Amino acid sequence: MKIAGQWLRDILGVLYQRPSATREDLVLATGLNPACVSQTVRHLLEGGVLHSAGRLRSTGGRRTELLKLNSEAGYFAAVDLEGTRARFALTSFLGDIRFRWEEEIFSGKELELDRITGGIHKVIDHLAAAERRRFLSVGVSYTGLMDGQGRVSAYNLRWNQYPLVDRLGGALDFPVFFGSDNYCKMLGERWLGVARECEDCVYILCGVGVGAGMMVNGHMLSGSQGMAGEFGHLTIDPSGPDPCNCGKRGCLEAIVSSPNIVRQYRERSGSREPHLDAAGVFARARSGDAAAAGVVARAGRYLGLGVSHLVNLLNPALVVLGGDLAIGFDVLREGVEKELAAHALPLLAAPAVLRPSALGADAGLRGAAALAFRHSLEHPDLLPRMSGPVEHESRPRRRRPTPVPVNVISLSQTARKRRGKETQ
Amino acid sequence: MKIAGQWLRDILGVLYQRPSATREDLVLATGLNPACVSQTVRHLLEGGVLHSAGRLRSTGGRRTELLKLNSEAGYFAAVDLEGTRARFALTSFLGDIRFRWEEEIFSGKELELDRITGGIHKVIDHLAAAERRRFLSVGVSYTGLMDGQGRVSAYNLRWNQYPLVDRLGGALDFPVFFGSDNYCKMLGERWLGVARECEDCVYILCGVGVGAGMMVNGHMLSGSQGMAGEFGHLTIDPSGPDPCNCGKRGCLEAIVSSPNIVRQYRERSGSREPHLDAAGVFARARSGDAAAAGVVARAGRYLGLGVSHLVNLLNPALVVLGGDLAIGFDVLREGVEKELAAHALPLLAAPAVLRPSALGADAGLRGAAALAFRHSLEHPDLLPRMSGPVEHESRPRRRRPTPVPVNVISLSQTARKRRGKETQ
Repeated sequence: MKIAGQWLRDILGVLYQRPSATREDLVLATGLNPACVSQTVRHLLEGGVLHSAGRLRSTGGRRTELLKLNSEAGYFAAVDLEGTRARFALTSFLGDIRFRWEEEIFSGKELELDRITGGIHKVIDHLAAAERRRFLSVGVSYTGLMDGQGRVSAYNLRWNQYPLVDRLGGALDFPVFFGSDNYCKMLGERWLGVARECEDCVYILCGVGVGAGMMVNGHMLSGSQGMAGEFGHLTIDPSGPDPCNCGKRGCLEAIVSSPNIVRQYRERSGSREPHLDAAGVFARARSGDAAAAGVVARAGRYLGLGVSHLVNLLNPALVVLGGDLAIGFDVLREGVEKELAAHALPLLAAPAVLRPSALGADAGLRGAAALAFRHSLEHPDLLPRMSGPVEHESRPRRRRPTPVPVNVISLSQTARKRRGKETQ
Repeated sequence: MKIAGQWLRDILGVLYQRPSATREDLVLATGLNPACVSQTVRHLLEGGVLHSAGRLRSTGGRRTELLKLNSEAGYFAAVDLEGTRARFALTSFLGDIRFRWEEEIFSGKELELDRITGGIHKVIDHLAAAERRRFLSVGVSYTGLMDGQGRVSAYNLRWNQYPLVDRLGGALDFPVFFGSDNYCKMLGERWLGVARECEDCVYILCGVGVGAGMMVNGHMLSGSQGMAGEFGHLTIDPSGPDPCNCGKRGCLEAIVSSPNIVRQYRERSGSREPHLDAAGVFARARSGDAAAAGVVARAGRYLGLGVSHLVNLLNPALVVLGGDLAIGFDVLREGVEKELAAHALPLLAAPAVLRPSALGADAGLRGAAALAFRHSLEHPDLLPRMSGPVEHESRPRRRRPTPVPVNVISLSQTARKRRGKETQ
């Protein structure tokens, strides 16, 4: 019996989302018949892509085998192009970060391609020769909007229809896959964060911009042009005074994005501190500063109205607040929940649990790795390599490869202030 | 080679959405390997579920065979429980309506189960004995909200947690599948209406209530409890005076639903005409009545703001206005498009084409049949019956069965006024 590509795709696609699974779990989750699952699992076990993770005693007294993916079956590079910094990571097959590199992006100057390719090579170079043969692909999380020709427009990167897909794809010898930051961070939370096992989840990302990654019935929503999730540009207050970067007024982003939290605090308090950020405003609200509390209350109110729209439309079981919203979750939560209860239908509002992101600054990297995994499954050259056999020329079969050292580049709190200087 | 259930599901699932397809189309659309597709197609052709529909000359000079589903390979009953009437149809495998039955629902009295089972039997009884063996399942489009236990709450049917799934399932000998009206009508437009071939589409239904059926990247969204699409309950004007049936104020439904269009016209014009409906208000706007034009302008403005939220979040290629909105499309369109352009990001607003529904009053029936088709594919007993062989005991193989006569119950414009009288 020949193993069909679809069986491999379906089975690897289920396994990467779970710590372990039995053959019965795989039959249920994929809809494949038991013989196909059994055959495919045998192939993956023989190739070393799957490991046995012990046995469960089943109801019938038989012991059913738990299966899990071999973390060394392949490697990915993950790139997170945020508004203010570029992050790079080498990850295992399971998304563990083995090596990382981060750089501040000089805001106000166009981000150059060399910075991106350089960062990718820096993390890949840490793979040993035997492991390098199992390097699969690169996942890129970008900020801004990408058009149908793969050109990205991102205010903070100073990119106006920058042909990212062509340029980066042309500069690398590996397949490269791209996803918007909202989309990737939702994927990351689903893979390794608070949205594990959740099929209906919305991830709200708040930083320089505001967007949403949306998963409904287990499907990630990207829309007709891959631009779904422009949550920050809902006109939430049509008569509002707040000007938005997009040229409109009253956008949610113009009220709740991190720079706009700071702007409103400055307007209310008269503060002229140069290095204040959203986290600082949340801290002041926590310690009783009335101006900060007022800004947080207003942000919570409009954010809650926006979340009620998502809940009424998409009926999620989980709403994850990410980016700076996770930092301010304790002070924002009450306002958001109150507005959600006021504006969403009660039957839909009740089960929509609000939680802060668990992945913090790594959400984008985890998500970019998840993106690379998912797209590699669909790639005709990568799927056979992902499904084995895992070669171990330089190492005996049983020994697990020693992990590549994790080089965490620690960044002091003041690093942000040294704009223009590359962090070493 | 055994034909896997998954292959049948995938191939029938692609074919029912297209007038015809080649084997190559099926390979592309399903991701199955060519040998599986070839084997499955042979099985379906031999069983009479597929027919050859001629040959296309391909680029290589070879003639590739066009395949289409046999419309007589199975039959469905479709039920559309609207706010004011119940519609029943017997449909072919391809969703053609072969017989129909409609009843007004006496508003103000709980809709009884016998009315529904009676309607279903009325349409099924028109199948000849040989055809009855190929009757597959019933699809039901309901108004209101269904909870996790299959209980429906619908103001207009006077149902408060009515156990529809248990009761109707228990009263019939066939599998019954349920979908909300928004969901079903979107499915109907995708199958046989203006959204054919479109993978990213929103269908806005406006009648007594307002809701949305949403398809993103080819997936129908239903959400964690199957309640996605409560578009009418977006709080579109938080400071607005309009009271909504749900108890909130400022809901979109409180401004643009058909009864609220009439209410606002009465308030502006002082009219006390008893039988005015939304279509009548649209007609007056068309002929220059200032009060009607004002109501239509306000509805268009808020509807456009609501559509901009859908467009910013879901990035659809098509927005279908259904129900009474299709009747008023010509007078509403300008206002909706203007607000959409003002509030959605230009990159997203430009490709989101606005169109009126093509299916009119049949959208729910077509959608309920589509629902039955899709769910029957997933049903372990129905899938083998859907994939043949099609028996033709009473007829020679080549002769197509004569269509069952279509009994269209014509309803005069004034039928609505005769509430409480069952239309014969």
